[in-house]
Amino acid sequence: MSAKDHSSLFSDLTRLFLPRSIALVGASARPDSVGGRTLENLTRVSDFKGDLYLVNPSRDEIGGMRCYPSMASLPAAPDVVIITVPAQAAIEALESAAACGVPFAIILSSGFGEADEEGARAEAQLCEIVQRTGIRVYGPNCPGLNNINARLGMSFSPAFRHDLHPGPIGLATQGGGLGRTFMQAMERGIGVGMWASSGNQADLEVSDFIHYMADAPDIKVIVTLIEGFKSGRKFVAAVRHAARMGKPVVALKVGKSEYGIRSAQSHTASMTGSAEINSAVLRQFGVIEVDDIDELVDTAWLLARRLPKGDEKLVVYASSGGAATLAADKVGSAGLELAEFAPETLQRLRALLPSYMPVSNPVDVGTEIFTRPRLVDDSLQVVVEDPSVGLVLYPYPLDYGQMIQQNAESTIRVQARTDVPILPVWMSDRIGEGYQAFVKAGLTPSRSLSNAVKAVQRWIAWGNWRRAFDPDFEPLLPEDAVAAQGDRPLHALSEAEGKRRLAASGIRVLPAGVATNAEEAVRLAEECGYPVVAKIVSKDIAHKSETGGVRVGLGSAQDVSEAWTNIMASVREKAPRARIEGLLIEKMAPSGGAEVFVGVQRDPIFGHFLTFGLGGIYVEVFKDVSRRMLPLNEETALEMIRELRSFPILDGARGQPKRDIAALVHLLVQVSEFVKNNAAELDELDLNPVWVGEQGQGAIPLDAVILNGIRN
Amino acid sequence: MSAKDHSSLFSDLTRLFLPRSIALVGASARPDSVGGRTLENLTRVSDFKGDLYLVNPSRDEIGGMRCYPSMASLPAAPDVVIITVPAQAAIEALESAAACGVPFAIILSSGFGEADEEGARAEAQLCEIVQRTGIRVYGPNCPGLNNINARLGMSFSPAFRHDLHPGPIGLATQGGGLGRTFMQAMERGIGVGMWASSGNQADLEVSDFIHYMADAPDIKVIVTLIEGFKSGRKFVAAVRHAARMGKPVVALKVGKSEYGIRSAQSHTASMTGSAEINSAVLRQFGVIEVDDIDELVDTAWLLARRLPKGDEKLVVYASSGGAATLAADKVGSAGLELAEFAPETLQRLRALLPSYMPVSNPVDVGTEIFTRPRLVDDSLQVVVEDPSVGLVLYPYPLDYGQMIQQNAESTIRVQARTDVPILPVWMSDRIGEGYQAFVKAGLTPSRSLSNAVKAVQRWIAWGNWRRAFDPDFEPLLPEDAVAAQGDRPLHALSEAEGKRRLAASGIRVLPAGVATNAEEAVRLAEECGYPVVAKIVSKDIAHKSETGGVRVGLGSAQDVSEAWTNIMASVREKAPRARIEGLLIEKMAPSGGAEVFVGVQRDPIFGHFLTFGLGGIYVEVFKDVSRRMLPLNEETALEMIRELRSFPILDGARGQPKRDIAALVHLLVQVSEFVKNNAAELDELDLNPVWVGEQGQGAIPLDAVILNGIRN
Repeated sequence: MSAKDHSSLFSDLTRLFLPRSIALVGASARPDSVGGRTLENLTRVSDFKGDLYLVNPSRDEIGGMRCYPSMASLPAAPDVVIITVPAQAAIEALESAAACGVPFAIILSSGFGEADEEGARAEAQLCEIVQRTGIRVYGPNCPGLNNINARLGMSFSPAFRHDLHPGPIGLATQGGGLGRTFMQAMERGIGVGMWASSGNQADLEVSDFIHYMADAPDIKVIVTLIEGFKSGRKFVAAVRHAARMGKPVVALKVGKSEYGIRSAQSHTASMTGSAEINSAVLRQFGVIEVDDIDELVDTAWLLARRLPKGDEKLVVYASSGGAATLAADKVGSAGLELAEFAPETLQRLRALLPSYMPVSNPVDVGTEIFTRPRLVDDSLQVVVEDPSVGLVLYPYPLDYGQMIQQNAESTIRVQARTDVPILPVWMSDRIGEGYQAFVKAGLTPSRSLSNAVKAVQRWIAWGNWRRAFDPDFEPLLPEDAVAAQGDRPLHALSEAEGKRRLAASGIRVLPAGVATNAEEAVRLAEECGYPVVAKIVSKDIAHKSETGGVRVGLGSAQDVSEAWTNIMASVREKAPRARIEGLLIEKMAPSGGAEVFVGVQRDPIFGHFLTFGLGGIYVEVFKDVSRRMLPLNEETALEMIRELRSFPILDGARGQPKRDIAALVHLLVQVSEFVKNNAAELDELDLNPVWVGEQGQGAIPLDAVILNGIRN
Repeated sequence: MSAKDHSSLFSDLTRLFLPRSIALVGASARPDSVGGRTLENLTRVSDFKGDLYLVNPSRDEIGGMRCYPSMASLPAAPDVVIITVPAQAAIEALESAAACGVPFAIILSSGFGEADEEGARAEAQLCEIVQRTGIRVYGPNCPGLNNINARLGMSFSPAFRHDLHPGPIGLATQGGGLGRTFMQAMERGIGVGMWASSGNQADLEVSDFIHYMADAPDIKVIVTLIEGFKSGRKFVAAVRHAARMGKPVVALKVGKSEYGIRSAQSHTASMTGSAEINSAVLRQFGVIEVDDIDELVDTAWLLARRLPKGDEKLVVYASSGGAATLAADKVGSAGLELAEFAPETLQRLRALLPSYMPVSNPVDVGTEIFTRPRLVDDSLQVVVEDPSVGLVLYPYPLDYGQMIQQNAESTIRVQARTDVPILPVWMSDRIGEGYQAFVKAGLTPSRSLSNAVKAVQRWIAWGNWRRAFDPDFEPLLPEDAVAAQGDRPLHALSEAEGKRRLAASGIRVLPAGVATNAEEAVRLAEECGYPVVAKIVSKDIAHKSETGGVRVGLGSAQDVSEAWTNIMASVREKAPRARIEGLLIEKMAPSGGAEVFVGVQRDPIFGHFLTFGLGGIYVEVFKDVSRRMLPLNEETALEMIRELRSFPILDGARGQPKRDIAALVHLLVQVSEFVKNNAAELDELDLNPVWVGEQGQGAIPLDAVILNGIRN
């Protein structure tokens, strides 16, 4: 898939988000019905200038507006039809809208897949209409679509009237609950330009909205709540498009622990997938993953206020020594950097601050601000003018009424004159006029220092990621492979066959061959060069050592002959029914290498992933692995190796030799190519261990397990 | 120090917190002076029934209350004198109060150690008066002492009038700023019984207040903000006393990262100490360390509502599928357990909930609650009656006005009938009547799911810790040792001498001796048994290998003779000025053991700590060590070994042999005894590596570095 053929995945949704005309099927005069509430939102709360057609066969008019008996009777096909009637009637309305040439339907009605078997059948009918006619459906079982920047609520929610604080954030969710938690952060000063929440996602889904928002000129930052994925390909295309357009995507993914996954599955029908795989995908496309709604608000709004370059240094500015210290502490623990002031800045600050206050970063202006109201204006101005300052963190530990209000207003004045973001942190549970001033000015105070520092950390990290982003990266994705292959069951290749295929693709393996008698074994050993190892070859034997099927350190022809006799005797005794293909004779790995592992798995949603690490306790206890979608280039492969916390073990820590990193990079890229060329059939590949020699000695897989086929 | 001799460390502060009579030196009629504001707090905001004497030589009365010209002229010595006059006058007033037999002085005035050199001299004078007369001083440079449960504010702070929500939390801080952040959480429903914040802590300090609050019958939970420590001994005695009294201590310690430490040092004069050491002390005495003020509020209040047993299982109860899933997710990620409902509970819930809702934990009652107002009362009641339920986590993702208010009131009703804590989480930034209902009922909603789950985690962990707490543990503390020793500079023992002393204390080391000529070396080698290692012995050579001073694997008399010649030649060439004592001949360790390290350091505040780990990358990269104050018993030693994340390496992971854990436990206890017996002089001890054999083979230090003396 190239950058240009998104058209095959995504429709242009402009007329859904910005319709010129709307029909409301199920328009009602009853104010507490779905149809009545939607009408109220469209006519009284929205500021919709286009044509609005009401469809209701049992009335002539509602509140002075004419009613049409059916979609077919409308004078023109609207851009959007909003359907509020029960499931079966909704299906009929949809069919009729499609017949009229309506491009988009928003189905608010419930009683579909979420309800029961009859509902599931209705939803299947709905999908069939979409497939057949090309009409695009938003919903069903959803609260509607709000384009707040256009002041248009195609929604039955009585809360829409509280949702009218426009802004640069686009919100794309599936369920409505936590999305509304985010919306209510408008109370803290954020502005949300549009909210798409399409419930059952029978057709259009979160990825479609992310893709649309990436193009929408009034959206700067996209926020999403992920309960599961319908199509890996669409999600990847959508977030990559956002990255290409320079718009950060901030995501809260639920279903990360066992309890969460179980609960998500009972709550939605989505596949939640493995948390590790999902996080790897998000990271790879620069999607900022957060852990709670408050973090989502803080992070998204900081990004909305200003996009980072990725090298910002901080100032902590406060009028409380304790708050300054706690903030500096958190900045340090998060690995962020405090700015070093230029000499001129220090001089200017010294001239402003009382002589007994030390001038440094954190800047502590003390209680002076209560007696000198201009002090914040003046000193904060000096701070933001320093050339090395990228962001000011300003903790307010407590409310002191009017004094803090004046202080907040000074801060807001300084912010109005500078591009350097000033991030106030309102730490107290007492909300005063100062807080309200920040809210009104759009400075959206964080409610805890920890969250504020996390937001800054993620803000800077996104800037960094963006600088390194490869806009042309095309991951291997699973759909084509699965479609091409049908349902072949899983089967494992023998080690010998696996290594043969790896070798055929250019991957260095140790010289080896499969002998079918003792003489051939000796001949192969002579060819490989002593010492060799001998391993039984049988598809029926998974654990070779347990059947006595392995002998190592064979140094002579006699050793090899004896090994043949002993292995065959042992295997015949311990696994009498195993079909034996022969004996793998392989040169022994040089001693003294480091051992790593390379694993590839196929995720049903996102395709093949490569996992790299040092194995053993490093993966089992410390979870120290790196993981990427495929394919890899050399740069990414090196990144994977270097990002291991245990990398020093490969890099010559504590007097050990430096390992052959170049060979390891080459191996990872070769494995990636191998997977790409075998993507249709390869399900899993494990090279464990991989021997890594000193510089120049290479990196060689010592064992290879390849599983082909399709998992059930 | 035994449990009974706290008297030598702590005075009874009852008459400071609950005075029967108070004198106010510097009482003023000017409402915005320190003396005037203090008078206002004492007479108008407080409900003080005792005698109040005003001291002001220039007035006869203030507001109808008589003024005395001096302390000496008072009719009786009050329990507390509050001093608000400038530093020099304050010193005089203190002297005169002490002469009258006043037991406690609260000095609100600033201009002491925090100000300049003159102030530091005044503070020294103040300390001298304390030493000489026995009067106890609270302050100077502090906002005062508030006993809210007694409705008594001995404070000049105009904010005291907002601090009148009494309760079971005792707050002990040094500076006032972040303490007030905590106080303002009264706005979220917490009650604070008393707040001590004694500024410069010239005499009484945080530890004194913790100790007092541990005895105070109206205090259940102690909260402290730690900027540094004056006396390790007092802090340990105070928190141990709290633990013995069954009262949790929750602490926020600032100064954990470099930036924070630097800022704390410029902000206060306290020694902040090493974050790792401080955290180890807190953990060892069950002090719950949190990372931010909001976490402090949530954790302390949950403990104040109910003390945990340590085995509580949770229910997540919600009316939003998204919030339920996110909450369950966090419960799982935190390693907490969801309760399994009894069959009867399931049956009762099924009878209450609509048939389409699955009944499990999380309990999702859906939007039904909006149409059936009794549903929360009924179903939540069933939940808390389940025998396995220890706590209910109830996330409220959004405000819906009156509907949520009714819902909150139902929750409050159920809480009133049960001991199982119900913890509401108000996730939205929109504060409504429901939130206010929780505040009023003292259910103090958490403001984020993450914080709520962290609070529950810490709550349960404290219950667990308390069950295992050894109330008789007496740590080695530094003061006596340092006092006994004077200022001897640091000096290192040679490896041979260090091992000799370890061996003399019963610690198993390899057979060894120091030879002063080649013949003696051979004789020693024969005694030890081959193979042996030979290492140069010289106090002037720190890195023996770099001078060619080490030979290993010497298997015969000839090897040993040659080693003597070669080592001496090499050392004479590479370190010509080193004074050589001889050659250490030592039996070589058996091959194939695991390597660990045992380190002991003396912290200037808290004394000797033992650190244990696997060394190398495990400590350097993964920070995988365990650390305890000394002495250790076998139980604690085993705990230290088992709490390593890399413990599986010693425990036979991945086919490796199980190591001799019993011998390792024995070694740790022996090292602890060694340190105890040498506490006065021992500064640092490093056994690295320690060889650990298979079960029955023992654990043997292969190298030993001992530093004696006192660090500058």
